[in-house]
Amino acid sequence: MKKALLTVLFILPMLGIKAQEVKLPDHSANPTKPLTVALEQRRTIRNFETRPLDMQTISNLLWSAYGYNRPQEHKRTAPSARNVQEFDIYFFDFKGVWLYDAEHNSLKQVVGGDHRKEISSQTHFSVAPVSVVIVANYDRIGDMLGKDRDFYAAIDAGYVSQNIYLFCAASDLGTVACGAVDREGLNKLLGIKNGKVMLAHPVGYPKSK
Amino acid sequence: MKKALLTVLFILPMLGIKAQEVKLPDHSANPTKPLTVALEQRRTIRNFETRPLDMQTISNLLWSAYGYNRPQEHKRTAPSARNVQEFDIYFFDFKGVWLYDAEHNSLKQVVGGDHRKEISSQTHFSVAPVSVVIVANYDRIGDMLGKDRDFYAAIDAGYVSQNIYLFCAASDLGTVACGAVDREGLNKLLGIKNGKVMLAHPVGYPKSK
Repeated sequence: MKKALLTVLFILPMLGIKAQEVKLPDHSANPTKPLTVALEQRRTIRNFETRPLDMQTISNLLWSAYGYNRPQEHKRTAPSARNVQEFDIYFFDFKGVWLYDAEHNSLKQVVGGDHRKEISSQTHFSVAPVSVVIVANYDRIGDMLGKDRDFYAAIDAGYVSQNIYLFCAASDLGTVACGAVDREGLNKLLGIKNGKVMLAHPVGYPKSK
Repeated sequence: MKKALLTVLFILPMLGIKAQEVKLPDHSANPTKPLTVALEQRRTIRNFETRPLDMQTISNLLWSAYGYNRPQEHKRTAPSARNVQEFDIYFFDFKGVWLYDAEHNSLKQVVGGDHRKEISSQTHFSVAPVSVVIVANYDRIGDMLGKDRDFYAAIDAGYVSQNIYLFCAASDLGTVACGAVDREGLNKLLGIKNGKVMLAHPVGYPKSK
């Protein structure tokens, strides 16, 4: 972890890469637990340690959630109705809020600073070192009727959310899908004009009681 | 497959178990493919062979979709908002329509005969030997506002649907989440009075082109 952080904070700027963009390591074949074990261990965790995640875990988490599994076809681990791929995936940590760029496998800073407590009134979730926030970008959905759009965007959010649950189950991490988010506050923070914050997923090591 | 069918058709009735209820084998640890491989191989398949699935595969499919992973707590492989567990899971094959009973790990016949073609106007999907139909039972959702109910039921359907996608990816099976279903016809066929057919999932071996 320390090494990864040092890379991000010091070496990348020296190489001329903007501090506002953090290249993620390639997602690795870990976790290697069988799907069946992930399904057996899937559960909701609401209490987290503050211990941070290393960059490899962050990369694996984001790839599992919504990465390209067929990069040449621009297709992803999670399906979407009519393949509209409507989501923007935001990543919150103690240093800032970042937009996940699946194509370049990087995080682009949207705003600096620790905004984890602004996600939800359930602020005890903000103890988790990171949160993944799933936002439907309606500009990408096109001519679907409002009612259909809401139906399919919600189903599609479930796909991404289940990927996160299963990744966490296979990685001895905990997570909870949080629908009670501060949509108005997040719209302002993230500059959302035509979209909806669907779910937030705090992710961290489960706190033993 | 033959052996499993014989068990279902002949031996169970001799044991005094009604032909309308088919006990499923325990779900096995297969598929043993890692979660990461399932995520890498997840895709939508729209063309199927007619080849049937064996009973073990059917059991594993239904358990992955919506089985109990913590039976003593009555908790499942797929989460649900407020843990309402609002879904009825129907299973269509050439012999009938069955309700999945996760607690008893069995299929209870709802109606006999082959109704696969009645699921959707996309009748080429009915070539698939089986279909899993996810129905939200609103009686179980309680006092949630209509708008919230629709939002969370759709997200929850995405959880079950992604479990099916990943199970199929890990089992060399194909599937497609089909939202364009004949809701009115299915309401009549299944006797749905206060609920919504969310998605249908034809499942079968992918047809090579």
